[in-house]
Amino acid sequence: MGRVTERRRVVRIRNGVAGVRPDTLVAEEPLEIRLNGKPLAITMRTPGDDFALAVGFLVSEGVLAGASDVRAVTYCEGAAEDGTNTYNVVNVQLAAGVPVPDITLERNVYTTSSCGLCGKASLDAVRTATRFPAAGADPVRVCADVLCALPDRLRAAQKVFDRTGGLHAAGLFSAGGELLDLREDVGRHNAVDKIVGRALQAGGLPLAGSILLVSGRASFELAQKAVMAGIPILAAVSAPSSLAVDLALESGLTLVGFLRGPDMNIYAGEERITL
Amino acid sequence: MGRVTERRRVVRIRNGVAGVRPDTLVAEEPLEIRLNGKPLAITMRTPGDDFALAVGFLVSEGVLAGASDVRAVTYCEGAAEDGTNTYNVVNVQLAAGVPVPDITLERNVYTTSSCGLCGKASLDAVRTATRFPAAGADPVRVCADVLCALPDRLRAAQKVFDRTGGLHAAGLFSAGGELLDLREDVGRHNAVDKIVGRALQAGGLPLAGSILLVSGRASFELAQKAVMAGIPILAAVSAPSSLAVDLALESGLTLVGFLRGPDMNIYAGEERITL
Repeated sequence: MGRVTERRRVVRIRNGVAGVRPDTLVAEEPLEIRLNGKPLAITMRTPGDDFALAVGFLVSEGVLAGASDVRAVTYCEGAAEDGTNTYNVVNVQLAAGVPVPDITLERNVYTTSSCGLCGKASLDAVRTATRFPAAGADPVRVCADVLCALPDRLRAAQKVFDRTGGLHAAGLFSAGGELLDLREDVGRHNAVDKIVGRALQAGGLPLAGSILLVSGRASFELAQKAVMAGIPILAAVSAPSSLAVDLALESGLTLVGFLRGPDMNIYAGEERITL
Repeated sequence: MGRVTERRRVVRIRNGVAGVRPDTLVAEEPLEIRLNGKPLAITMRTPGDDFALAVGFLVSEGVLAGASDVRAVTYCEGAAEDGTNTYNVVNVQLAAGVPVPDITLERNVYTTSSCGLCGKASLDAVRTATRFPAAGADPVRVCADVLCALPDRLRAAQKVFDRTGGLHAAGLFSAGGELLDLREDVGRHNAVDKIVGRALQAGGLPLAGSILLVSGRASFELAQKAVMAGIPILAAVSAPSSLAVDLALESGLTLVGFLRGPDMNIYAGEERITL
């Protein structure tokens, strides 16, 4: 089983003076996700929570909506040069009756095969794939003060980041500001997939009434993952993209950016944030 | 043609007081890259330099090594609802005799179809796909002081970042510290693909003797792109991953992380950095 961090030799230059020492780095390894035995996607991830990552990814793609959709999740065995399992290939076997999607392109599913690909097609793909009630129907309200306290709470709970500086964090919080789960990964989308996958495994989907906080920026992909998991509020420490905002507006997701100190920008769904 | 930024309405909360104003966001739109008319990959990118992005991506995948490998790059036409071109689908037509690769999985090409997938397979894939001399053969030397000055230079040259806070930057520098090219994108891998693609278009590959500086972390994917373009030095403002370091050590790439002020960490190829 892979490790979250690895040690490597480093030459440190500090004020013009060089010294050699060991350094702790975030581990990065490929993970191949198979669906019913067929390769579906490869993601570069930090080892750990691999089953959660695999099923969370499939929630984002609209394949899974609950633990009962999964028959089994297993590491594929064998085939490393020395005969040992690399623990880098995970197969998700669907339960009987769960439709197998036709996913052919990249991490994002697009329903179009014409030249008309555009942001609208991306929004359409999410809309048609959602398995849960629209985020807009979620009546949760969050006090702005509670929201402002979350970045410090996330940072305090991050154990690995302080050692490597190389991990993205995603935190799941209750509307009252309680930290429900925290995942870290070299890829921010993986950290979110791990959160969502663990919720699926625990029977906790959809994640109604919850807040997802990410340590970096809010891209379309992260907004998509929030919507697909039924999360009503996505908050980011840094900037959102235009398409993330468009998706939030269309799906009723509350999208907060630049959440820093007492300040924030609300790009969509501001009715959920109370002063 | 897409725009680099877009305007959206935002509710700003500053010290408990809410106000509404327009905000400038980084534009994000999907780009489908086709090879000889066949869909190959979709990336979420900031519109602009799309042809460079497409051919740069194909350099990273080992398909292209020079401008003569390309017959034509075009936007596919039609098919948006109102009949206009979305400018989000680019086709790269290979020149006669250039082998068409079998790329089936995601952005990263893996030669294995067995269960033995591991970091080593990723390293092998880069080694076998490289079209240029190993970075280790590049005799370039860079003064540490020159390197330390680059982040400020990159930041000063970033025009869009200051408005949106949502863009990753990649800068190409000469060994003397001269800024040769700067690209910004919502995805850091896209920014690097645009740099590499523009170099291909200008007949500048391999990028021997140059330095690639990225505004964030150094992942395996970014190290792979540097190696595939013949860039001998990759520097990042933040942390590298374990697999990025492994690839750098194996391929002779100089990898610098935490390049901040007068300080840096050199993870591989330190012989190129002089004090």
